[in-house]
Amino acid sequence: MSLLPPSLTRLIENFQRLPGVGPKTAQRLAFYLLHVPEEELQKFADNLTNLKKSTVLCTMCRNVSEKDPCQICVNTSRDQSIICVVEQPTDVLSIEKTGMFKGMYHVLHGSLDPLNNIGPDELYINDLLKRITPNVTEIILAVNPNMEGEATAMYINQQIQQLTVNSLPLTVKITRLAHGLPVGGDIEYADSVTLTRALEGRREY
Amino acid sequence: MSLLPPSLTRLIENFQRLPGVGPKTAQRLAFYLLHVPEEELQKFADNLTNLKKSTVLCTMCRNVSEKDPCQICVNTSRDQSIICVVEQPTDVLSIEKTGMFKGMYHVLHGSLDPLNNIGPDELYINDLLKRITPNVTEIILAVNPNMEGEATAMYINQQIQQLTVNSLPLTVKITRLAHGLPVGGDIEYADSVTLTRALEGRREY
Repeated sequence: MSLLPPSLTRLIENFQRLPGVGPKTAQRLAFYLLHVPEEELQKFADNLTNLKKSTVLCTMCRNVSEKDPCQICVNTSRDQSIICVVEQPTDVLSIEKTGMFKGMYHVLHGSLDPLNNIGPDELYINDLLKRITPNVTEIILAVNPNMEGEATAMYINQQIQQLTVNSLPLTVKITRLAHGLPVGGDIEYADSVTLTRALEGRREY
Repeated sequence: MSLLPPSLTRLIENFQRLPGVGPKTAQRLAFYLLHVPEEELQKFADNLTNLKKSTVLCTMCRNVSEKDPCQICVNTSRDQSIICVVEQPTDVLSIEKTGMFKGMYHVLHGSLDPLNNIGPDELYINDLLKRITPNVTEIILAVNPNMEGEATAMYINQQIQQLTVNSLPLTVKITRLAHGLPVGGDIEYADSVTLTRALEGRREY
């Protein structure tokens, strides 16, 4: 690769470190940028530089935000008694897009994954437990429906069961998102685990 | 999307302008960079800023290079009598990787595409014609085997035929890359045009 100018090689390496970007894609992106006007390139560079400087994690919900606390946490019209626990800031966006949820969020920034050395201390689980006061009536565990997500949900559930107020156990409803057929999906192509969950969770018509 | 900090939104927009990057991928890449150390982010930004400043187009072959003329054009051990015409700088890399070609290159930076307003003047075709002196014995038209590539090859061929030296036509061999079955491919899955070309170009065993 010594044929390429070093500045181009370095940029290809930067792109290659991004998730889902292989050597060929990285090369294509870097070569594409050669044709982009200099000022646009500079804006892209500035946005990268400022990314971390102008974003913070909300000390309440740990979501990525411009200000601390974030605009969801300071919004008094939202239901403070329901906390929806998600793995990533992008999950907050997805749930907000439905327009169906008007409670609070808590972002864990990952899921339990012992194989990759991600234990409870690497996630914002303790911050979540501190937020569960007697005013909170429901915790929705909106973690991903995979092995790591299940393990995380199980662990958080155990921890919440151990919470006490004046040495009495705290009563808080813990819920999970429904499993079943995706809307627009085909029963023929559904995997058997999903179909089992869809049968178990069937509702009266 | 007003939920996201503006610096994050702007970075997502930057990524979305890259070829082959949709809104979901752009969001994933930007959120990934939130977890990257600040100094690495700064290096990425610097590489973007310096990309255009530290690269030039070689005035001979129009390839992207650190210096002008580029290291291929100044390499006297290469065969100056063969010019391989390619569409993009990345094509030079691909051909160099084979290690089979020891001649010179000429990069057109695109192919004729009237629908997108790319005519002969948008490509470095005139620079190519100027390079074809009586010392040049062969021009390999290594353009892509698609509509635009074929049109470009045809146009360049016509232009070379009209070249003269002392009012005598210039004799230069013009060749194309072979078409046929890709190595490791399956005859069963080859399209009929490729198979036709493979039959036409069959060689004695």
